[in-house]
Amino acid sequence: MDREFLFFNSASELSKTISSFEHSIIICDENIRHHCLQHLEFDHNIPVICISSGEKNKSLQSLEQIWDGLIRFKAGRHTMVFSMGGGVITDIGGLAASTFKRGIPFTHIPTTLMGMVDASHGGKTGINYKNYKNYIGTFVKPSNVYILPEFLKTLEPIHLYSGFAEMLKHGLIADVYYFNSLKQLDLKEVFVETERLVPFIEQSVKLKNIIVNKDLQDYGLRQILNFGHTFGHAFESFFINEHSAHGYFIAAGIVCESYVSLKRQMLSEDMFGEILETLRKHYKKLAIKPMDVQIITELMVMDKKNLQSGISCVLINGIGNAIYGNIISEDEVKEALNFYLSHA
Amino acid sequence: MDREFLFFNSASELSKTISSFEHSIIICDENIRHHCLQHLEFDHNIPVICISSGEKNKSLQSLEQIWDGLIRFKAGRHTMVFSMGGGVITDIGGLAASTFKRGIPFTHIPTTLMGMVDASHGGKTGINYKNYKNYIGTFVKPSNVYILPEFLKTLEPIHLYSGFAEMLKHGLIADVYYFNSLKQLDLKEVFVETERLVPFIEQSVKLKNIIVNKDLQDYGLRQILNFGHTFGHAFESFFINEHSAHGYFIAAGIVCESYVSLKRQMLSEDMFGEILETLRKHYKKLAIKPMDVQIITELMVMDKKNLQSGISCVLINGIGNAIYGNIISEDEVKEALNFYLSHA
Repeated sequence: MDREFLFFNSASELSKTISSFEHSIIICDENIRHHCLQHLEFDHNIPVICISSGEKNKSLQSLEQIWDGLIRFKAGRHTMVFSMGGGVITDIGGLAASTFKRGIPFTHIPTTLMGMVDASHGGKTGINYKNYKNYIGTFVKPSNVYILPEFLKTLEPIHLYSGFAEMLKHGLIADVYYFNSLKQLDLKEVFVETERLVPFIEQSVKLKNIIVNKDLQDYGLRQILNFGHTFGHAFESFFINEHSAHGYFIAAGIVCESYVSLKRQMLSEDMFGEILETLRKHYKKLAIKPMDVQIITELMVMDKKNLQSGISCVLINGIGNAIYGNIISEDEVKEALNFYLSHA
Repeated sequence: MDREFLFFNSASELSKTISSFEHSIIICDENIRHHCLQHLEFDHNIPVICISSGEKNKSLQSLEQIWDGLIRFKAGRHTMVFSMGGGVITDIGGLAASTFKRGIPFTHIPTTLMGMVDASHGGKTGINYKNYKNYIGTFVKPSNVYILPEFLKTLEPIHLYSGFAEMLKHGLIADVYYFNSLKQLDLKEVFVETERLVPFIEQSVKLKNIIVNKDLQDYGLRQILNFGHTFGHAFESFFINEHSAHGYFIAAGIVCESYVSLKRQMLSEDMFGEILETLRKHYKKLAIKPMDVQIITELMVMDKKNLQSGISCVLINGIGNAIYGNIISEDEVKEALNFYLSHA
């Protein structure tokens, strides 16, 4: 089957394509049904499986609800399952389809910038299981990813900035020219004229696919996509009760991991300065206090991705060139956190 | 990772190999723990996840029990999960491992003849879901299949004959020389001296792997493995409350589907006679009455594998040469059933 990554100029064009399949089923959540689905003008005979919104519903219970829907609507290999939404929906929809009758075709229609540039590519599917994040899942790529840039107009700015952090990350780990062009964007403008984001979304997807195609099952190279995430995940856990978005924590993680790269003389002062300036411009500093440094360090030590030997971290050897599998010490972590809280 | 298909001469050799992995976990059911696991002399620190026996426990509930065990025993990519048992255990163990953390390595240790020659090869994993057989599953091949022929000594004859029917099927669809050598076996002897079955098990596995490697995800060629199963599954549903084994229904299905092949002049009278004689010799006729023909035909019409256009059936064009995707009529089904009940 051909894998297609397609942009759509209008909701009606997307609707027409969804309706053109022999047998289509849409999976979404309540928010998407309200904000996005009503824009589409497709044949109302297309069945919709709608689950509850939010990360807490990325659960076995929702997965069963989708499987039940697939049975009810007689899904099979002749079916195309469209998962429309953010990362939760594309992850769980992909898992449901990839395990139903040992796998039926599915297409992702990401509605967030994060989904368009990151979550819907790369073939990771999953649910959280008994409080373990993404513990149950598969590696199966969607048949297609369909992108309707006008969905971005439905998003609050916080979610646009959040996705943009992953785009900056793509530049930092793999393409200095891309990073430079992102740096020069006036986000207040492009977040209104969202169609101007299209070439940048395309470049992010291209970079992510190059990496994923070399290492679908995450044995090595793919780990470079975790740049910013070693510190980022610890920040996310620390601020778990705050109203924020994933990309804000990754932005802070990028600053810290670039700082470690600087200290290891992998990054020049100039390059580090450029990165710091770009991140500072768009992302408000996280409210970390000196007394939090110890707790955040401990969160990083406990992270499940770590080897027994220490904290594993992606660093950059110049902009556009990531190195995975670096073991960093607790002292390096604390030094980076102290830098962040005093200078970022 | 190298895929290994290995025979073991003794339980202690198998035990040693299981213990040699960095981190091993065994999945089995209560029967296997009692009849097979106690023969192994492995390190008793190897954790065992034991589920209830039987097809009714090939369920989401058992799958969760295995996932919970994998979490408890800290399974990860460094782990080798050994599923020891019949088809239920290898199917569910394979599904659990192939979806845990998006896939960790697993090895099958089939303890039945059916498992050794068929179920544990080919990468189909699955559970039954809300009364739908194998509706949830994946296609992922085990890293290894380990076979200890002495496990066959723990089986009742009915289960040896059951597995033997699938071996006959392998010959009929893909290898006339193999069929001829199976035909000449004295089963009463080889079912006692089970080590004599080794070369035949090897040949069945080789034939199955050739087919599966050409069509892992079951888009075409792999369907030839369903020879005998169109009628066979209907018989199995019809006699659902009788104490029998899968292979007995397949044996009856082979007679009927060979008969349809004969009537379509794909099979000569002589060849059909050979097949009929071999099957008659080993398998007691199913107790079908003339009044059952209509019901069994209806079961076949309803079978989920059928296309909208009719009953899809594998036929043989001479012994050793199967053709899939034949659409057969209800009249052909009834004629074959009438032949079976009067002559088989």
